[in-house]
Amino acid sequence: MERQQNEIQKVELVGIFAASTAHKIRNPLTGMKDLVTLLKEKYTQEQDQFYYFVIGQEIECINEIVSEFMILGKPTAIIKKV
Amino acid sequence: MERQQNEIQKVELVGIFAASTAHKIRNPLTGMKDLVTLLKEKYTQEQDQFYYFVIGQEIECINEIVSEFMILGKPTAIIKKV
Repeated sequence: MERQQNEIQKVELVGIFAASTAHKIRNPLTGMKDLVTLLKEKYTQEQDQFYYFVIGQEIECINEIVSEFMILGKPTAIIKKV
Repeated sequence: MERQQNEIQKVELVGIFAASTAHKIRNPLTGMKDLVTLLKEKYTQEQDQFYYFVIGQEIECINEIVSEFMILGKPTAIIKKV
């Protein structure tokens, strides 16, 4: 029972934490994205372009994971059958 | 009670999810870090170096957040007073 209480408190904490974490991760991600775009426009060699493309994809990948993560932080809706 | 059950199931899910998410985020992060190191060594202009330094810091920042996050996914230890 004590353990259950702990787990419930943890869920609430995770909810708050998930939202703030998502923002914390998205802020540096956005900063990175802007700098990479800037450098990608500056260095147009084929190999560099490929590197920047891959970096851009990794950024997008993390962005998607963060979006998925936020779903679990949201409270559960109870649908009552009438 | 139904809600409590849901929340407990969510905690378990969050635990599994947190661990896999951390890995999912760390994989692209590592890839990015390697490419940024490579480009940083290639382009040594002062401004570019600054950009790569900032990108490196952002990567480190996300890495720290992911590490913090994993703590919440771990099960709670109950310490019994004797």
